[in-house]
Amino acid sequence: MKKPLIDRLYQRVAQRGHVCLGLDTDLSYLPEELLSSDKSPADALVEFNRRIIDSTLDVTAVYKVQIAYYEALGLEGLRAYAETLRYLREQDAIVIADVKRGDIAKTAEMYAQAHFSGDFEADFMTVNPFMGMDTLAPFFPFLRDQDKGLFVLVATSNPGASDIEGIVSQSGASVSQMVGDMVVEQGAPFVGSCGYSSIGAVVGCTNKDQTRSIRHRMKGCFFLIPGYGAQGGTAHDMADYLQDGNGGVVNSSRGILLACRGNRFGGLSFEKAARQECIRMRDEIYECL
Amino acid sequence: MKKPLIDRLYQRVAQRGHVCLGLDTDLSYLPEELLSSDKSPADALVEFNRRIIDSTLDVTAVYKVQIAYYEALGLEGLRAYAETLRYLREQDAIVIADVKRGDIAKTAEMYAQAHFSGDFEADFMTVNPFMGMDTLAPFFPFLRDQDKGLFVLVATSNPGASDIEGIVSQSGASVSQMVGDMVVEQGAPFVGSCGYSSIGAVVGCTNKDQTRSIRHRMKGCFFLIPGYGAQGGTAHDMADYLQDGNGGVVNSSRGILLACRGNRFGGLSFEKAARQECIRMRDEIYECL
Repeated sequence: MKKPLIDRLYQRVAQRGHVCLGLDTDLSYLPEELLSSDKSPADALVEFNRRIIDSTLDVTAVYKVQIAYYEALGLEGLRAYAETLRYLREQDAIVIADVKRGDIAKTAEMYAQAHFSGDFEADFMTVNPFMGMDTLAPFFPFLRDQDKGLFVLVATSNPGASDIEGIVSQSGASVSQMVGDMVVEQGAPFVGSCGYSSIGAVVGCTNKDQTRSIRHRMKGCFFLIPGYGAQGGTAHDMADYLQDGNGGVVNSSRGILLACRGNRFGGLSFEKAARQECIRMRDEIYECL
Repeated sequence: MKKPLIDRLYQRVAQRGHVCLGLDTDLSYLPEELLSSDKSPADALVEFNRRIIDSTLDVTAVYKVQIAYYEALGLEGLRAYAETLRYLREQDAIVIADVKRGDIAKTAEMYAQAHFSGDFEADFMTVNPFMGMDTLAPFFPFLRDQDKGLFVLVATSNPGASDIEGIVSQSGASVSQMVGDMVVEQGAPFVGSCGYSSIGAVVGCTNKDQTRSIRHRMKGCFFLIPGYGAQGGTAHDMADYLQDGNGGVVNSSRGILLACRGNRFGGLSFEKAARQECIRMRDEIYECL
């Protein structure tokens, strides 16, 4: 029998390292040869993703596909999104749909159906908790019965994160900390044999003091960590959020997709450069643990 | 020259009343005749929406299309979403894309492109402010140059809304109140001649005390008000949030789409019942002002 999702992710991290490869693929990232081919832009985008995936599968824990980049291209873009997800499923990759949905019960049910089955099926989806914990409940049957998982926004890595997430309540805890506590509570019924829950948290690495305290409060919670590289987070920062050398994945998108245009791996094909950057990032994180 | 968006919405409310018709169209709402026709489910859904729109255009201020219901049907569902939006544009209806997006800058740019142009073009979109005010900025060029608008989640009408929106900060203000203040500040550059901003707020009517204080704090802010009917809000509740008889629209979805299955208008065709329910709701709100 297949292991539960969170145990499979834990195992992938143990075997392949901590890289979460963000397929936030913008058309402008594609090389001339692909853009000028006979393919439609959407098909060229799928081909780009496919070559990235083929080249990185054994050095990547999980793929995160940011739906906004596909949605921006309309129906054709969403076809490319669906085809990218299908290809990832065929490769037995673990996939996070980065859709950040959050809505009232009946609507959340629809989102669960949309992203946990059918054309857009993924393993995990990111959700936004602003409207409250009742907006998570409609996903639970999919966690229980169909081996799916969530990553809930807790502390993000953007400059404005302090506006709301950083509000300090009368109890002295920040909104992020309080959301973190709620996420741990909601996740308790979904803890796998690895000790982590299928309800994980998005915790950025750009505010170190805050994140350390959140890691401490959220021991059984698996982290999806944005903010590495372009956003200023270093491998040392990351290591603080990875307990026992596991317990989280670190996202990089442009840093990998555009590695062929950087100093380190410029001159290589985009897929070879992506692979080299995955390995470099993986090893850099290993060294800091 | 066409009036700015918020002034057109204000005028629609003055001329047609306060009803925001929510096209949260579930396949189970469709009558047998449509489902059993030769049409695909997605085409049947578009036909249902079309007949609802034709029947309610002159008694509805604005239409709100909840993308989750379409997304749940995959690519075909999103084609139905695009076709519904196109039909609404052709009728010169004002349309809110209820997508509740919220993400970091580059991703938010993609969402702006997705929902303010191309296949999924709408007039307003709903956004989730959890990640902070910098996630709104990428939409502003569209507000300024392409006559678009936002409704930002401030106080929602679901039972769990108090979990995060209701957290009281050390200043004594709730998260909802603080978000409301930020929304007013962000909206200041986008105030139309009607006195309201193109950056409006979603303020539910299920917590009366809180909402009254929010209305007071957010004088220049146009409200999108969920919670009427099925969720327990009455026309009297609504009237408190409508200043000078304008300044907001009241959403009803199932109450209108399924009016033909209710006591009042059972026996009428779905589109006739929807029209009667729009008129009844419109007049009920008028009476309370």
